[in-house]
Amino acid sequence: MTILGQTSDRYVQPVRDPEDDTLRLECGVFGVFGARDAAAVTALGLHALQHRGQEACGIAAFDGKSFHTERHLGHVGDAFTGDDLIDRLPGAYAIGHTRYATAGGSGIRNVQPMFADLEAGGVALAHNGNLTNFLALRERLVGEGAIFQSTSDSEVILHLIARSRKARIIDRFIDAVSQIEGGYALIALTNKKLIGVRDPLGIRPLVLGDLGGKPVLASETCALDMIGATFVRDIENGEMVVITDAGVESLKPFPEQKARPCVFEYVYFARPDSVVNGRPVYDVRKRMGMRLAQETPAEADVVVPVPDSGVPAALGYAQASGVPYELGIIRSHFVGRTFIQPTQGVRELGVRMKHSPNRAVLAGKRVVLIDDSIVRGTTSRKIVRMVREAGAKEVHLRSASPPIMWPDFYGIDMPDRDKLLAARKSLAEMTRFLEVDSLGFLSVEGLYWALEAGPRDPAQPQFTDHYFTGDYPTRLLDREIAEGGGDAAAKQLSFLVSA
Amino acid sequence: MTILGQTSDRYVQPVRDPEDDTLRLECGVFGVFGARDAAAVTALGLHALQHRGQEACGIAAFDGKSFHTERHLGHVGDAFTGDDLIDRLPGAYAIGHTRYATAGGSGIRNVQPMFADLEAGGVALAHNGNLTNFLALRERLVGEGAIFQSTSDSEVILHLIARSRKARIIDRFIDAVSQIEGGYALIALTNKKLIGVRDPLGIRPLVLGDLGGKPVLASETCALDMIGATFVRDIENGEMVVITDAGVESLKPFPEQKARPCVFEYVYFARPDSVVNGRPVYDVRKRMGMRLAQETPAEADVVVPVPDSGVPAALGYAQASGVPYELGIIRSHFVGRTFIQPTQGVRELGVRMKHSPNRAVLAGKRVVLIDDSIVRGTTSRKIVRMVREAGAKEVHLRSASPPIMWPDFYGIDMPDRDKLLAARKSLAEMTRFLEVDSLGFLSVEGLYWALEAGPRDPAQPQFTDHYFTGDYPTRLLDREIAEGGGDAAAKQLSFLVSA
Amino acid sequence: MTILGQTSDRYVQPVRDPEDDTLRLECGVFGVFGARDAAAVTALGLHALQHRGQEACGIAAFDGKSFHTERHLGHVGDAFTGDDLIDRLPGAYAIGHTRYATAGGSGIRNVQPMFADLEAGGVALAHNGNLTNFLALRERLVGEGAIFQSTSDSEVILHLIARSRKARIIDRFIDAVSQIEGGYALIALTNKKLIGVRDPLGIRPLVLGDLGGKPVLASETCALDMIGATFVRDIENGEMVVITDAGVESLKPFPEQKARPCVFEYVYFARPDSVVNGRPVYDVRKRMGMRLAQETPAEADVVVPVPDSGVPAALGYAQASGVPYELGIIRSHFVGRTFIQPTQGVRELGVRMKHSPNRAVLAGKRVVLIDDSIVRGTTSRKIVRMVREAGAKEVHLRSASPPIMWPDFYGIDMPDRDKLLAARKSLAEMTRFLEVDSLGFLSVEGLYWALEAGPRDPAQPQFTDHYFTGDYPTRLLDREIAEGGGDAAAKQLSFLVSA
Amino acid sequence: MTILGQTSDRYVQPVRDPEDDTLRLECGVFGVFGARDAAAVTALGLHALQHRGQEACGIAAFDGKSFHTERHLGHVGDAFTGDDLIDRLPGAYAIGHTRYATAGGSGIRNVQPMFADLEAGGVALAHNGNLTNFLALRERLVGEGAIFQSTSDSEVILHLIARSRKARIIDRFIDAVSQIEGGYALIALTNKKLIGVRDPLGIRPLVLGDLGGKPVLASETCALDMIGATFVRDIENGEMVVITDAGVESLKPFPEQKARPCVFEYVYFARPDSVVNGRPVYDVRKRMGMRLAQETPAEADVVVPVPDSGVPAALGYAQASGVPYELGIIRSHFVGRTFIQPTQGVRELGVRMKHSPNRAVLAGKRVVLIDDSIVRGTTSRKIVRMVREAGAKEVHLRSASPPIMWPDFYGIDMPDRDKLLAARKSLAEMTRFLEVDSLGFLSVEGLYWALEAGPRDPAQPQFTDHYFTGDYPTRLLDREIAEGGGDAAAKQLSFLVSA
Repeated sequence: MTILGQTSDRYVQPVRDPEDDTLRLECGVFGVFGARDAAAVTALGLHALQHRGQEACGIAAFDGKSFHTERHLGHVGDAFTGDDLIDRLPGAYAIGHTRYATAGGSGIRNVQPMFADLEAGGVALAHNGNLTNFLALRERLVGEGAIFQSTSDSEVILHLIARSRKARIIDRFIDAVSQIEGGYALIALTNKKLIGVRDPLGIRPLVLGDLGGKPVLASETCALDMIGATFVRDIENGEMVVITDAGVESLKPFPEQKARPCVFEYVYFARPDSVVNGRPVYDVRKRMGMRLAQETPAEADVVVPVPDSGVPAALGYAQASGVPYELGIIRSHFVGRTFIQPTQGVRELGVRMKHSPNRAVLAGKRVVLIDDSIVRGTTSRKIVRMVREAGAKEVHLRSASPPIMWPDFYGIDMPDRDKLLAARKSLAEMTRFLEVDSLGFLSVEGLYWALEAGPRDPAQPQFTDHYFTGDYPTRLLDREIAEGGGDAAAKQLSFLVSA
Repeated sequence: MTILGQTSDRYVQPVRDPEDDTLRLECGVFGVFGARDAAAVTALGLHALQHRGQEACGIAAFDGKSFHTERHLGHVGDAFTGDDLIDRLPGAYAIGHTRYATAGGSGIRNVQPMFADLEAGGVALAHNGNLTNFLALRERLVGEGAIFQSTSDSEVILHLIARSRKARIIDRFIDAVSQIEGGYALIALTNKKLIGVRDPLGIRPLVLGDLGGKPVLASETCALDMIGATFVRDIENGEMVVITDAGVESLKPFPEQKARPCVFEYVYFARPDSVVNGRPVYDVRKRMGMRLAQETPAEADVVVPVPDSGVPAALGYAQASGVPYELGIIRSHFVGRTFIQPTQGVRELGVRMKHSPNRAVLAGKRVVLIDDSIVRGTTSRKIVRMVREAGAKEVHLRSASPPIMWPDFYGIDMPDRDKLLAARKSLAEMTRFLEVDSLGFLSVEGLYWALEAGPRDPAQPQFTDHYFTGDYPTRLLDREIAEGGGDAAAKQLSFLVSA
Repeated sequence: MTILGQTSDRYVQPVRDPEDDTLRLECGVFGVFGARDAAAVTALGLHALQHRGQEACGIAAFDGKSFHTERHLGHVGDAFTGDDLIDRLPGAYAIGHTRYATAGGSGIRNVQPMFADLEAGGVALAHNGNLTNFLALRERLVGEGAIFQSTSDSEVILHLIARSRKARIIDRFIDAVSQIEGGYALIALTNKKLIGVRDPLGIRPLVLGDLGGKPVLASETCALDMIGATFVRDIENGEMVVITDAGVESLKPFPEQKARPCVFEYVYFARPDSVVNGRPVYDVRKRMGMRLAQETPAEADVVVPVPDSGVPAALGYAQASGVPYELGIIRSHFVGRTFIQPTQGVRELGVRMKHSPNRAVLAGKRVVLIDDSIVRGTTSRKIVRMVREAGAKEVHLRSASPPIMWPDFYGIDMPDRDKLLAARKSLAEMTRFLEVDSLGFLSVEGLYWALEAGPRDPAQPQFTDHYFTGDYPTRLLDREIAEGGGDAAAKQLSFLVSA
Repeated sequence: MTILGQTSDRYVQPVRDPEDDTLRLECGVFGVFGARDAAAVTALGLHALQHRGQEACGIAAFDGKSFHTERHLGHVGDAFTGDDLIDRLPGAYAIGHTRYATAGGSGIRNVQPMFADLEAGGVALAHNGNLTNFLALRERLVGEGAIFQSTSDSEVILHLIARSRKARIIDRFIDAVSQIEGGYALIALTNKKLIGVRDPLGIRPLVLGDLGGKPVLASETCALDMIGATFVRDIENGEMVVITDAGVESLKPFPEQKARPCVFEYVYFARPDSVVNGRPVYDVRKRMGMRLAQETPAEADVVVPVPDSGVPAALGYAQASGVPYELGIIRSHFVGRTFIQPTQGVRELGVRMKHSPNRAVLAGKRVVLIDDSIVRGTTSRKIVRMVREAGAKEVHLRSASPPIMWPDFYGIDMPDRDKLLAARKSLAEMTRFLEVDSLGFLSVEGLYWALEAGPRDPAQPQFTDHYFTGDYPTRLLDREIAEGGGDAAAKQLSFLVSA
């Protein structure tokens, strides 16, 4: 009896824990063309992208004759192990994917890369982002007889490629991406090509690297550093690169637009050692902290970051303000996803499983606490209480990003608008709710200053920043249909339940 | 980390062990409409059909709103357990499937029931049999943009249903089954109907039962006995039954033909307590043994069956010949699928893991050994040697079926023709190969006598019997294409490798 | 994360299912000295002894320098697999054990062989049977500072060996077995010797075999047949054999007594192809059936065994009575240990998961049903009902053993006396309870006739037969203490809870 | 088949990876007396102590009647999960243990707490530290007939308790600890008492806390913070506390000595938010960094810590030197224990799986790199290379502790002396080996300054500091015997192999 023998292959819909106070990116992608042991290279690259999706991962490799795929729930470092990795996933061509995935047992259906046998041969696809016309497209495809195996929007793209009337695979790709809307970075592997596409506005990131002469694609530059590859350039917004033995060809299948990359990559998602759209993330975050110190100063004894994402901004704040930087909160490396449900008596202690107060730093001090952003505020309040219980005399909370007030539809998993603290309360109300002595947010202007992109152009903003401004960069078709309340929307919802 | 987290979702092609000397049926199917705890009823029914497919099993249930499916590798009794079965698979409507499935880890993709979301709602499908134009249909569908997730011919049927231009689900079904060829019994569940179809010749079996007023479909009557249902009738060859709240409707979507059910269900596959096409299997097998005693008598002291499938014929042989029936071979109940690879020193003992000699019966005796059939002969020879080593003075081997000389294409997994003993050797050669004192087979006439169906009609045989006669009941399209050697065949083979 | 990482190492006490209507032997033992790949040979031998204990198994091997042990829950054929078995358990010396073990997850502590590092080197021990002074010995040892890791009586023996003041391992063994009481067969492996001991009355069986010149010990001869070894002789009651490179030495450490082997080995436990104490089990069981036909004849159309244990007696009954033997009940090969808890609606069908009625044989017939024995009667009644529902006109139940009226303390797991049908009811009451037309048991005299051991000697019975007679062969110290109600007993009960 | 069914219960000796360049503490201990849901409290406490042992963990709970224990491989947060934790481990009394444990599958035998049924009732034991006369005691106990189930020195203590001739459990404890030598902190739970003992020199730490009036024992104060308990006091060196319903009683069973706690708790092991022996670890580490800046200054642009353990010293270094502190190395949160074996082509990248360079900080800079200590130097060299490849102009490495030159025998897992860089090379050789522009270590005097304990007293040092000085605080009996080369040592080694 193998373990697989006990596999339950059930459909389960993910449900967001109502207490969950985090933002999550839904994916990281990686691909390499022509490099020895491509699957091992891809596993390392995915490991560097683990922060972009921690619940599932997959690799598809091509050995010149056959495709081999493996998809797992869990971390890359637990899934892609064993001396036989290269035997299981042989070949010089591979793509991979990490995913923040569904709750429940059988998310495995939704794990990427997805694979299809086309007439012209196999194609494997990995996708970071979200389609804003996913439900509309899916309904049309089901009406035409397409059978879906997952609830993932990536499968829609695969069906569009499979059904295209075009002959060449590149033309089928262009056919498919011309029909989708939203923010995305796609990587696909066929038996001859590695293809990368970035959405027309470049909302989701994608970079090109070079590993000893072999092209590499990745969501972030930290994946290039991990494998010892050099950074070549960002894939441009609306660009499709087609990598073959002949080299890297660049196509522009979409009407030209100005780039508008997601600002949250800088605020929270990207690793601090990555360079996103030409800007080192660490530098941007430090500048956010510096500006924050100017915009909302505080009389304090210590600057304390909420680790780890608040660290660079706190360093910037400390350097700009002259207040010493200290580790007042210690982060545990050992938080499992499924820790004990604490009983009532210990429930309040939950936050300490991840963060512990360092009394030696906090006791008797006026503390400026720096966090990257504030979502629902529930976690922030727990941290504030913890800092006070450790003896802090005053707590001044500063958010290194502007107030988050609008939900995302381009690949960020976020609570609904009515759960966002800044959408519900005034600054004074938030100050009371968070139980702090003072509260400050970086301004939108300050954010653009930190990004060194010039003042925000309201007519054509340089970044996707609707979380703070409500200014969405594309239409939101599925949402419009749903709010129109028509049959189509109802039908779509029913499929989500039945699947 | 869940166990699923370690699931490897790899495509692996099954490979038949070259030493494998067995026949295997590929499936059993079951369905129930409107009965309380339908999934539990289905699990019991599948347990009774376990002999028709021991490597994987699945259940799809519908609770009036949603479909829930579970598919597992392993036995029904290990997979569908737990107090929460009814919670996991709620509802009064369910179908199930047992499968002799693929080697390797990821057969789970091929496990049934398969499910699709159609425009009109979900449909789950379970299939016993084999399509003889599977590759041709698959190639056409891939050309039209269909994406296949498995290498199973059941998925072809699902795509044909999904792509049909007809509006009503029943018409889509008829559309689909009109395009497929081969031997099959299908059960499908939609959100309003339970559908059963038997191929135009009725090669594979399917019966209708009644569980307290609720209709049941199953491959064999033993599944009805298991759940306490009564037998209503066989589904006829070429019949489609559509079960709704209004009752059981019978359709005949195919041009009418005379039935020609598979004779191997009587010889080997069906359980002895089943009644197949109106004939109790146990009775037919006993009659085979009786006739065998007349056709090929032996001077002997004891009649010994090769358990368990040789038991009824041995009882018939003993009763007809007057030679006493004794348990000269004991069958172990504990043979795992994956026992130790015996080292060279103990390899010869392998057969004893399943069968042990009973010296008290065999020593010094002239033994008539009765087996249901002889395939490659390698297992038979091992058993003969084992019986001799236990002291038998003479060994007379009798096969209760005629010599097997032609492969099957209707759902029986069989060695290639050049491995079939009777296709390669004369009776005298077989006698030497098997190391027996005499060897005898039931004649084809004797087989028809045992079936009480009158003498075989060469123009229109009453049974599918090509294993013995080479007389195939349908054209074999995929095989013709493959032997034609065209591109299509080559392409199909490549997909099988690449998948 | 390894699977072991999720192992819960909890103490759990076994609890007998109150509905459980079976007898179970608690163990089988096997050992081989000096044979190549001894662990693979032992795995095969244990496989043949699987019927003596189906819930756990273990092997200890010695490679001339180190001991290696593996212990598993589950069947031998599932546990001792893999190409690396010989690498995991290297060497030419090995012993093994199969066990009917504890409920719950952590029975692994009680799985044998058990191992101890003595001053003189390691010793591994495997034990079939039960000590009747286990609790008394355990209490004494705990008082002396011994630490127990299991609730198994085998560990008591290991502590007695470890604490003996004797220098030679053989003398330590004799020291230990001189203190224990009950019925047992022990096999031990040291770094120089393989030791076998049978209790003074020879209650539990043990045989000596020869595998190409290398000595083998096993509970039953079927294990010798499995590995291709020849039978040499039974170990005698009260004999200790010490196997070294110099050969097999026989010691008699106990005061001489007449043998009194357990009669239930013939009635139920031993495999029919084994020869126990010189008598082929199959022959004895057939003779039981023949005598039963004489003692309690029935007017009937068919003789039907309750498979599998009732088969030989049914053959004997049929041959003696002239009533034809038919397979009226089919046994499933696929019953898992943990099948679904049927819901109320299907609970009554539970018995059919193991046994199915064969209507073709039963309908309209007067049936003599032959079972090996009747314990609580609950399973028998379900089978009788099932046979009637399949159409039997009359059901005459015959037990091939005398009425079971007294519990066992020598290694058989049995319901308490107040649950034994024959201890609670008269023949007429049992006939009504079992819902049969007539009921008959073999007499004790008939049993002795079948054993060909002469009439039972009431002063000194030839067999351990207290199940039928209440005549226990040894004192029952633990039971006497418990019934004495003293502190000692109370304390022992508390340890059983706390462990 | 349960997962447990596949458990291999094998003895495997741990083997240190020859490339392993880390120090590891072997344990953390925790206990709570009389608090509701004691097992949940203990799980939280162990989670805070996870850094003291990451490979296995266990909890023993007492509910007033019975002991329940669970022991797992893996992290606390993965092992002690589930809504039923309180049902599995009920009661108000519990102790727990985290362990850096053995390689191989069956470390479960060595996982603590260990449990024994004594005459007076059960006792569970958890132990942090190492006995320096373990082998000598074990040999004596085996000679007396004790059976060991593990290779852990904790089991020696349990046997000494079990075999003591004293009547009261406290006296048995004193009897046992009077015989052991080394550095240790013990926690034991009986059916009436929670007992804590710290070795005569107080080498290993142990603190007393208060959880709403209920006493708590733990290795570090961070476990008290985690559960919301207040710190009461350190257990003193050579003190035994006996906690009952009547309160906390303090005993001094050993001859009085001055305390000499392990200095490495400050250097590396303890969490920065713990207060050890009255000194906040974070403050001590910052002072080490400050003093290091004075002792070995460097002309540099940035101070960069090797995260996480180098962070406080780097902050101190930066504050004392005025050179800005920057995050030049990013630590991954996702390093699994069993990542892919990188193929030759990517092996050099291994260090990046844990640490990544932050180019934005490093490129073109003169970098002072601060680590807590240098062991073999192999990891340090990889980090130095990585920092250079990211563009650093100069790299000046500083160790916040003195050179490590002598191995430990009190519970720290360390490479052998001939692998310790500072024991093999001069400062100039180390500078070349590590490929740095300059190298500096904190002096022993500087370390004592940071500890604010006055200058080191060579006659009676205030701390256990032999790693730097070679001045061991106790005799090392096992080592003396081994170096004496006698039979005893040889025998002990053989048991380690055979076990």
